[in-house]
Amino acid sequence: MELAAKACPFLRNSSPSALRSLSQRPAKTAMAPNGLVHMAQQCPVMGKAMTIQARSAMMAGSCPASAGARHFSSSAANANPVKSQVLEFASAVSSNDIKASVQHELHKANPAPGAACPFKPAVPTSFVAPTATKTFDYEAVYESELQKKHQDKSYRFFNNINRLAQRFPRAHTAKIDDEVTVWCSNDYLGMSKNPVVVETMKATLSKYGAGAGGTRNIAGNGALHLELEEELASLHHKPAALVFSSCYVANDATLSTLAQKLPNCVILSDAMNHASMIQGIKHSGVKKMIFRHNDTAHLEELLQTLDPSIPKIIAFETVYSMSGTIGKVHAVGMYGPHGSGVAEHLDFTANLNRPQGSPMQTALDQVDIISGTLGKAFGVVGGYIAGSAALVDMIRSYAPGFIFTTSLPPAIVAGATASIRYLRNSPHERIGQQTNTRTLKAQLASLDIPVVPNPSHIVPVLVGDAEVCKAASDELLRSHGIYVQSINYPTVPRGEERLRITPTPGHTEEMMGHLVRSLESVWQRNGLKRASEWKATGGRAGVVEGAVDPAPIWTDAQLSLSAEAIGTGKAIPAHTLLGAQARATSVAQL
Amino acid sequence: MELAAKACPFLRNSSPSALRSLSQRPAKTAMAPNGLVHMAQQCPVMGKAMTIQARSAMMAGSCPASAGARHFSSSAANANPVKSQVLEFASAVSSNDIKASVQHELHKANPAPGAACPFKPAVPTSFVAPTATKTFDYEAVYESELQKKHQDKSYRFFNNINRLAQRFPRAHTAKIDDEVTVWCSNDYLGMSKNPVVVETMKATLSKYGAGAGGTRNIAGNGALHLELEEELASLHHKPAALVFSSCYVANDATLSTLAQKLPNCVILSDAMNHASMIQGIKHSGVKKMIFRHNDTAHLEELLQTLDPSIPKIIAFETVYSMSGTIGKVHAVGMYGPHGSGVAEHLDFTANLNRPQGSPMQTALDQVDIISGTLGKAFGVVGGYIAGSAALVDMIRSYAPGFIFTTSLPPAIVAGATASIRYLRNSPHERIGQQTNTRTLKAQLASLDIPVVPNPSHIVPVLVGDAEVCKAASDELLRSHGIYVQSINYPTVPRGEERLRITPTPGHTEEMMGHLVRSLESVWQRNGLKRASEWKATGGRAGVVEGAVDPAPIWTDAQLSLSAEAIGTGKAIPAHTLLGAQARATSVAQL
Repeated sequence: MELAAKACPFLRNSSPSALRSLSQRPAKTAMAPNGLVHMAQQCPVMGKAMTIQARSAMMAGSCPASAGARHFSSSAANANPVKSQVLEFASAVSSNDIKASVQHELHKANPAPGAACPFKPAVPTSFVAPTATKTFDYEAVYESELQKKHQDKSYRFFNNINRLAQRFPRAHTAKIDDEVTVWCSNDYLGMSKNPVVVETMKATLSKYGAGAGGTRNIAGNGALHLELEEELASLHHKPAALVFSSCYVANDATLSTLAQKLPNCVILSDAMNHASMIQGIKHSGVKKMIFRHNDTAHLEELLQTLDPSIPKIIAFETVYSMSGTIGKVHAVGMYGPHGSGVAEHLDFTANLNRPQGSPMQTALDQVDIISGTLGKAFGVVGGYIAGSAALVDMIRSYAPGFIFTTSLPPAIVAGATASIRYLRNSPHERIGQQTNTRTLKAQLASLDIPVVPNPSHIVPVLVGDAEVCKAASDELLRSHGIYVQSINYPTVPRGEERLRITPTPGHTEEMMGHLVRSLESVWQRNGLKRASEWKATGGRAGVVEGAVDPAPIWTDAQLSLSAEAIGTGKAIPAHTLLGAQARATSVAQL
Repeated sequence: MELAAKACPFLRNSSPSALRSLSQRPAKTAMAPNGLVHMAQQCPVMGKAMTIQARSAMMAGSCPASAGARHFSSSAANANPVKSQVLEFASAVSSNDIKASVQHELHKANPAPGAACPFKPAVPTSFVAPTATKTFDYEAVYESELQKKHQDKSYRFFNNINRLAQRFPRAHTAKIDDEVTVWCSNDYLGMSKNPVVVETMKATLSKYGAGAGGTRNIAGNGALHLELEEELASLHHKPAALVFSSCYVANDATLSTLAQKLPNCVILSDAMNHASMIQGIKHSGVKKMIFRHNDTAHLEELLQTLDPSIPKIIAFETVYSMSGTIGKVHAVGMYGPHGSGVAEHLDFTANLNRPQGSPMQTALDQVDIISGTLGKAFGVVGGYIAGSAALVDMIRSYAPGFIFTTSLPPAIVAGATASIRYLRNSPHERIGQQTNTRTLKAQLASLDIPVVPNPSHIVPVLVGDAEVCKAASDELLRSHGIYVQSINYPTVPRGEERLRITPTPGHTEEMMGHLVRSLESVWQRNGLKRASEWKATGGRAGVVEGAVDPAPIWTDAQLSLSAEAIGTGKAIPAHTLLGAQARATSVAQL
């Protein structure tokens, strides 16, 4: 026993509390339910023991207290002579000795019998394995980084949610007969279960198979890809469009490539821009200036400091998806009558019967580059940009994130095209979504449940604490059959944690009633802060004294216009990216 | 007329040759077949004229010589007072004046009648619009960057290829009844048309719909995602795995996040690593050292210069997809008996009947992180990493490219899982691929057609000139019904342009004969360089005097072992990522 404790650098240098931490931490991801056991299996000593005695009492208890010793594994795995000494050293210890030693340590640290693996958390203080040869302990870094997440409660546990196409917006959880109502999906308009989309995809699978089979340049460019890009260009009244694996990639690749190509470019970026845009800006390496969220006066102020002759990119979003706020940069804003997003909405009448290809000076035209996602309101997956032919061709020709990746499968692009076409001609989904959103916001307001004020389809219910927010989400799921994910840092600022609710046209009145009652119950049971309490204590995230709720961007008149249009049976102009959050990365060139 | 020519800064400052360039350039992308017309439509002056007189003779001729004037558009689009002067200015000119002026300029520059839009190329020399207020000309930059691509022949024209699931490896082109044989797809094993994959995806679409509906954290994490990750972890004998939108994103996100988390990390990178790895390394911002392609002596030399106590990442690929070469970093290499890639192949016998979860010291175990694609041999789309539980959990918790993106659709992940499982138990596809590859390489060698020597399934036929390579590819497509994409810079170095052929198990003997005869015909007709000529003149890309063709990594014995195993009906161990090119980003930690 003593031999083992001395021989193993991990045990020799780990405090009882560190061991307790490793053993007590819950299964960290649903992906790796036995993560710590797996880790222990990687230890050249412990791993062997576990294999040989896989059914021993210790294994049965799944106590992975010795998992940290795994740093030997990477040492053992390489050919550097210095480090293979470490391997030799560890190998000289028998696995039974190590196991006994671990049990001994467990016993010392936890005199209370019966409690399995009862150790406490601690962050490794050094990443260097304390051996004579000082090799680097990679696993300790990983553990330490995870520990930080656990400590500040920003560690994410993924819920197992399986959205049922035939029972939208219902889903089953890990148990196939345990159904819940999904209230936080980005499938805003339920297009992922729309038969037009699903059947198009199935037919395409039969005809063109599962995968594209290559990059766009090598065997992965088909008529369906071109058709989707034509549809997107037409949707946004732009000459051209380009499809990417995701909107994350679209934003990252476009912003970084564009800014690099524009000599001495400066990027002016909204303070609340999405992570993908922030990455694109960072990856470009150019100078950036941050303007306060939706503050055009601040933007203008920053612009005045810059030489008019140098190129500038103004990067902002249309609907900020976690707050529901809407950008108002210059006249360039967000929703609209032809499915082209908020920018088009700002000139609703002008765009209503606008012929294809006609040059106009609406907000839509003032946004030079629009980026959007095919994975939200359109219900499929992927992202895109739309802009001038030369801009699109330049990004197509230079952006590594576009060039060096397998193109989206034929079925995906066909499904997306079908979805866009459907939504350009059907306002039902948007009307249902808007109506449900208005109803929900009104009901929550009447109960003094705090909602971050905004004019869009997002209903962000403010909680303001990471742990409490997760607990509320868990309680809704377990006790009420309602899935609303808690949104914590880094997706929202610390102290602004929220339950982000996204009503869809598929949510019934009954479901809405159940949601509101359940939220009220969770608020009561846990004494969560009401809107009036937030306001009385200074407020956060717009839930402040004297704040006026912005009017919904879809006005009554616009909603009824669409409804009338259905009645007349004519083509419906009022299709918008409303839910699509076509992020107008919008690069309004100055 | 004179007024217009002076008023329009574009016309005033463009040479006749610049105008000719714009008009003569062919449709630049299949995405924007009328690219230049669309550009002209963006000009606030020309655009209006084109809308009003859309059927005029000029429009009918599609002469877009005035398209460059579009830089007004972005000026006009913003609210900066300085620039709105430019808008006012331009607006004072009538569209008819501009049109007449353009016609005048065209006439001057091209006295020969009858030739439509006959101007010549020129790169804009300044991006600053020559107005009193000096605003930036964005479109000129885009045009200039594209011009560079045209000039060095690296501009890419995407072929329209629609691979037919029922007639693999056949595809139709832009015309639905014009069929060709695809010889360059990355659907190496034909899994994209495998009924197991396709039917799984169709059933999943019916049950779970088109899109995932959110990020992995918000409504987009289902049992199918977890199942795929378990399958991948098991495939590679690693504790955990993580799925990304693409392997590009997997490599970029993992390398950048990992290197940033390891204090003072140094990345040692193979000189021929894939663009996605290069991006990930660049985005990490850490120190990098490049070792010569597959040169372990050079790698060792670089390692010796580094402090043993600092963390290091060795990043390399298994099969280098454009050359077919195979990495040999330390004992960590590439192909294998359990579908785990080349690393497993190096200890073929040891891994043959290896129980799940047993710790061993094979090359496979020495690779700490494996990244792979679901879009090539597995025939679907997406990418992944596999590694220790803590590593995977850290990347899951910190990598923006994983966190902030809609997860892959249920049908995609289900299809990928089905494909992996199928290939773990069926060696038919691999045997067919290997046999076809050997045959093709032998036939080309006998005709003195130069093939970059390698031990894998890639058959890179060296051409060595971008324009000639594209012409050869076009001739194969148009005259022989064979699609082999020309691979030019930046995918391969200049001077090493090639036709990259990827035989699949679906190619018949007849198709192979036709391919070989067609290549010989193209070589003869165009006097392309033979292998012997390359060797006599110093050679390139491994086609050099005295070079010995490496033996195929799949030995005769290994191939026949698989064949026997089929005969016995027992589970077949010899499934490999062979074609999957599971790029072992492989981050062998030292």
